[in-house]
Amino acid sequence: MYRSQTCGELRSSHIGSEVSLSGWVHKVRDKGFVVWVDLRDRYGLTQLVFDDERTQKELLEKARTLGRETVIKATGQVIERASKNPNIPTGDIELLVSSIEILNDSLVPPFTIEDDTDGGEDIRMKYRYLDIRRNPVKNNLIFRHKVAMEVRKHLSDQGFIEVETPYLIKSTPEGARDFVVPSRMNEGQFYALPQSPQTFKQLLMVGGMDKYFQIVKCFRDEDLRADRQPEFTQIDCEMAFVEQEDVLTAFEGLTKHLLKEIKGLDVADFPRVTYDEAMKRYGNDKPDIRFGMEFGELNDVAQHKEFNVFNSAELVVGIAVPGGNSYTRKEIDKLIDWVKRPQVGAKGMVYCRCNEDGSYKSSVDKFYDQNDLTKWAAVTGAKSGDLILVLSGKEHETRTQLSALRMELAERMGLRKPDEFAPLWVVDFPLLELDEETGHYHAMHHPFTSPKPGQLALLDTDPAAVRANAYDLVLNGNEIGGGSIRIHDKKTQEIMFKHLGFTPEEAKAQFGFLMDAFQYGAPPHGGIAFGLDRLVSILGGQETIRDFIAFPKNNSGRDVMIDAPSPIDDEQLKELNLKLDL
Amino acid sequence: MYRSQTCGELRSSHIGSEVSLSGWVHKVRDKGFVVWVDLRDRYGLTQLVFDDERTQKELLEKARTLGRETVIKATGQVIERASKNPNIPTGDIELLVSSIEILNDSLVPPFTIEDDTDGGEDIRMKYRYLDIRRNPVKNNLIFRHKVAMEVRKHLSDQGFIEVETPYLIKSTPEGARDFVVPSRMNEGQFYALPQSPQTFKQLLMVGGMDKYFQIVKCFRDEDLRADRQPEFTQIDCEMAFVEQEDVLTAFEGLTKHLLKEIKGLDVADFPRVTYDEAMKRYGNDKPDIRFGMEFGELNDVAQHKEFNVFNSAELVVGIAVPGGNSYTRKEIDKLIDWVKRPQVGAKGMVYCRCNEDGSYKSSVDKFYDQNDLTKWAAVTGAKSGDLILVLSGKEHETRTQLSALRMELAERMGLRKPDEFAPLWVVDFPLLELDEETGHYHAMHHPFTSPKPGQLALLDTDPAAVRANAYDLVLNGNEIGGGSIRIHDKKTQEIMFKHLGFTPEEAKAQFGFLMDAFQYGAPPHGGIAFGLDRLVSILGGQETIRDFIAFPKNNSGRDVMIDAPSPIDDEQLKELNLKLDL
Repeated sequence: MYRSQTCGELRSSHIGSEVSLSGWVHKVRDKGFVVWVDLRDRYGLTQLVFDDERTQKELLEKARTLGRETVIKATGQVIERASKNPNIPTGDIELLVSSIEILNDSLVPPFTIEDDTDGGEDIRMKYRYLDIRRNPVKNNLIFRHKVAMEVRKHLSDQGFIEVETPYLIKSTPEGARDFVVPSRMNEGQFYALPQSPQTFKQLLMVGGMDKYFQIVKCFRDEDLRADRQPEFTQIDCEMAFVEQEDVLTAFEGLTKHLLKEIKGLDVADFPRVTYDEAMKRYGNDKPDIRFGMEFGELNDVAQHKEFNVFNSAELVVGIAVPGGNSYTRKEIDKLIDWVKRPQVGAKGMVYCRCNEDGSYKSSVDKFYDQNDLTKWAAVTGAKSGDLILVLSGKEHETRTQLSALRMELAERMGLRKPDEFAPLWVVDFPLLELDEETGHYHAMHHPFTSPKPGQLALLDTDPAAVRANAYDLVLNGNEIGGGSIRIHDKKTQEIMFKHLGFTPEEAKAQFGFLMDAFQYGAPPHGGIAFGLDRLVSILGGQETIRDFIAFPKNNSGRDVMIDAPSPIDDEQLKELNLKLDL
Repeated sequence: MYRSQTCGELRSSHIGSEVSLSGWVHKVRDKGFVVWVDLRDRYGLTQLVFDDERTQKELLEKARTLGRETVIKATGQVIERASKNPNIPTGDIELLVSSIEILNDSLVPPFTIEDDTDGGEDIRMKYRYLDIRRNPVKNNLIFRHKVAMEVRKHLSDQGFIEVETPYLIKSTPEGARDFVVPSRMNEGQFYALPQSPQTFKQLLMVGGMDKYFQIVKCFRDEDLRADRQPEFTQIDCEMAFVEQEDVLTAFEGLTKHLLKEIKGLDVADFPRVTYDEAMKRYGNDKPDIRFGMEFGELNDVAQHKEFNVFNSAELVVGIAVPGGNSYTRKEIDKLIDWVKRPQVGAKGMVYCRCNEDGSYKSSVDKFYDQNDLTKWAAVTGAKSGDLILVLSGKEHETRTQLSALRMELAERMGLRKPDEFAPLWVVDFPLLELDEETGHYHAMHHPFTSPKPGQLALLDTDPAAVRANAYDLVLNGNEIGGGSIRIHDKKTQEIMFKHLGFTPEEAKAQFGFLMDAFQYGAPPHGGIAFGLDRLVSILGGQETIRDFIAFPKNNSGRDVMIDAPSPIDDEQLKELNLKLDL
C-alpha cells in the first residue's frame, strides 16, 4: 500500500495517527537542524518534517538530499505544526517522518512545477506531462471534467440519450476539409473523420430517438488559426418534433444549469437579437454585451455638411466611450493608429470630446457645429465626459472595424470581466453567404438548415435575403453554440443542394442516404452544437482553449510531445495501396 | 408546438383534457364505422380513435388512408377506453381526434417496424434509421446510455477525472494495425488513430492526475472476426500509487455498482483464479463459471493400461456432464462428431456412462475396469446419472478442445443463463506469449505491463515462465476488462523493449516520449480497460455487440447505410501528396 491518505487530506483531527503519504517532492527547506519537505500530489501539499532531535541521523541526511520531483513514500506520525499555515488546508499539521522510500528518481525538470512557471509555451508543450502537474493546468482539466459531467447529468435528466455515432464515415467535399483514413480492407477507398456528427444525428431523429446528445470529438484539416485545434470537442444535440422556440428553451436551460452548478450564478432569461440587429448594434454576430458602447448610426446627422469623407460613405457609425474625454490627444492619436493597422483596416477616425460643461470639441469642427455634435451625442448615447469615436465607409467593413475597436477599448478598460457572464441568442441568420472569391453562395450554417417558412421561393430571386431557422448562443463575445431547425423533406433538401451548386448526381452520391431517409417518415427536427473547448475556457474565465485540453496540438497541427504526425513505413504504405507523391 | 405530451404519457388522470401528440402511424385498424390508429414515438404507443358518430366525415376518411410510418400531429380529447389494454401504460385511454396534420409522408418501409421484424441483417443495416425505430434496438441504445452514465457517475464519485486524450496520434508498428491519417499540413507525414489511449493515460499518471478514466473510441484496422468492429469503445482507466490489489478493488467496485444499479443484483466478492488455474480447471483464460463441469485431469488414473491413445498423450482430461447418462448412443456419437469438426479439432472422444446403480459403462471397457472408472468419476466429480467425456492429446490443444465442448454443452443445456452474472478475476497472466509463426515472443497484454517483482532476470533464461502483474475481469465467459500494473522506470521499459525485439533506436523513435517521461518522477501506476460494447451486450443479456451500436460496420468494415469507405477525388489525394498504388 502506497498511502493511507492523500497529501490534501490530513487535518488536526488526525494528530497522533500513523499515516503513509506518497507524492512528489515539491520543495526542500534545509535549516541544518531541521529539514522540511513539501510533499505534493493531485490533492494538495503536506509538510514533512525531519529534525535533529526526533529523526534518525541517516534519515535526516537522506531528506536533505531529496531532489525536486522525486517520488517518495513517507511514513510517520501526524503532529501539530508549531507555526500553522492558514493558506493551505493541511496547514495545521505536519508529518514527523519515521521512514521514507524512494519510489522513483527525477531529473531536474526543464521548468519549475509552480503556478507561475519559468517554462515557455514550447517547452511546456514538449513536456506536457510535467506541465499538467502544475495547479493551473491540473485544475483546468478537473474543471473540464466537472462541466462535462454537469452537461451529461442535465441533458440525461431532460430525457436526452447519449448515442455514439461513428468516427469512420464518408468523405464529403463540402465545407472545411476532411481528414481521410485509407482502408486496408477496401482497396483504394477511404473513410473520413467527421467534421461533426450532423447527418448521423439527423438519422437518429428519423430513427425516433427523439432527444439525442453526444460529447464527441470532431476533426477539421484546416489551416489553424491561433486558437483552433484539428481535433475539437462538441456537445452535439438534436431533438425531434421541435420548433426553434423549443430548442432555445431546452439549451437556455442547459446553459443556466451550468452557470448555476459551475459558477453559482443565477442568470436571467437570455436576451434575443436578430442577426441584423446584432450587426447594427454591435457590428458583430457574436456581440459581447457585458458592456455598452452600442453603435449609433450617424448618416442622418452627419451627411448634411461639406465633409466629403462622410458624405461619400455608405455608413457613418460611432460609439461613445464612457469617460473617454479624459484621453490625451496622444492617446487618441494612438487609437487612430490602432484602427488604421492593416488587421483592422480603417482609413481614419473622427472623434468628438464631450466636455463636462456640455460643450463638444471634435476633430471635424470645421464642418460640424455644436448643434450637429449634440445630435451625434444623442445618437451614440454619449454623456458629458465621454468620447465619441466615428468610422465611415462601406457598410459591412465599417461595422467590422468599429466592432474591433469596441472590443479593444472594452479590453483596455477592463470591461470584459472574466467572472461576469452575459449570454444571448442571436437568431434569424441569413441562410446563405456570398463567397466573395468564387461569387457563389454557400450555406452560412450548413446545407441542412431550413429557410424560414415561406422563403423558399426567394432563393431564386434574392438568395441573400433568405433568413434561416438558425441561431447561435453567444457568451461574452464568443459563439459557444450554434444550430438550426433542419430540413426534413427530400424535396426541400434537393432545392437547397441545387442552390449550393451540387448537381443532382453529386447530391445523391454524397447525401443520398440522408435524402432516402427523409422519404420514410422523417419528423421535424432541429438541434444545436456547443464547442466544449471554448465553453469550458469561457466558464473558466480564460481565453485560450489550449489551456483546457490535456494534450493540445500546436498551430501546425503537431503534437510536439509525441512528435506526430510522422513518416510511416513503406511497408505500411504498401499495405494501404498508397504511394507518396511529394 | 408539435405536442403537449408524448405517446407514452397519457393516463386516466388525463381524461377530459385537450392534448396534441406527434409521432409515427404504427398501425391502422379500420372497422368501417370506427378507425383506430396506433400512434408511436420513442416513449410509447397511444391509440387514436375516429368514428362515425363523433368524428367529422372528412377526418374519418383521412384517418382511414394513413399509411404506416406517416408522421402526424393529432389533436383531440383524452377519453376513457371502452376495452382497456393492460399491456401498455397508455392502455386506459384513447385520443378522440378532432384534427390531424400530416407532418411527413412515408414510403412503405422495407421491413415492418415491429419487435420481431421481417427484415434480415443486411436490409436492417442499410436502413438502420428504420431499424432504430424498433423497440429492441431503441431500448438497447437507451440501455447503453444508462450504463455509460452509471460508469461515469461511479468513477467520478470515486475521484476519477475524465480526461480526453487525442485521436490524432503517432503510428506504432507494434501489435494490431493502426489506421493512419495523412496530414495535409505536414507533407508526407501521417497521424494514427489510437488503438487505445495507453501511453497518454500513463503520461497523465506521470502528470499527477492520480485517477483517470475516459469512455473513448479506439480503432483497429484488423481483419474483422464475426463480432468485432474497426472502431470500438473502451472504458479506459488508470490510477497512480497503486498495487494490483488497489486496482482490483476499485474496479470490482465499479462492476458491482453496475450490476446493482442496472440489473438490481447484489453480487458477492469476485472469485480470483490465476491464469494457470483457469487453464487447468476450464481450459480457458475467460471461463464461464455460471456452471460447473470443471476439468478433471486423468493422466494418473488412465495411463496405466494398454490404451495407447491415452498413454501417448501429454494430457488426458475429462468433464462430467450432469445428467448426461440420459443421452442416447446416437446423441453421444453426434457429440463425438462435433469435437472432431475442424473448428474444434479433436481426434476422437472417450466417454463413460455413470449408471444409476453405481456401475460404469465406457467406450473403452476393453482397457479399463470398474475400479479405474470409479477413479475417473472421482477425478471429474461425476455422479450417478452423469456422463464423463474424455479428450487426450497435446496439453494446450486438448484443453482448448475440451473447453469448446464444455461451452457447447452448457449452451445446449441452457446453463448460460443471460440473467445470471458470474464475474471473476483471472490474475498472474504470463508476461510474454510465443508467436508460433515467427518464433518470437510478444507481450501478452502490451509492452508496458510489468513483470512480477523479482522475475525480470528470468526473461533471459525462461521468458515463458515470467508472470505479469496483469489481470482480466471475466463475466459469463467473456473478457470484459483487462489491465496491469505498468512499468514506471526507464530501465525496465528498455529491457522489455529489448526482449520484444525492438532495437534501442526503434524503441526510442516510437516510445521515446514515454521513456523520457519516466525519468521525471513517474509514480507507480496501473489500470484497466473495459470493452464497453461487450460489457453492455452482456449486461443486456445478449451476445451480439452490433445490436448495441447505433451505426455498426459489417464484417468488411463497411457502413452499408452511408456506403463508406469510398473512393475520394484525385484533387483530394493530390492535396495529401498521395497516389493510389493498386
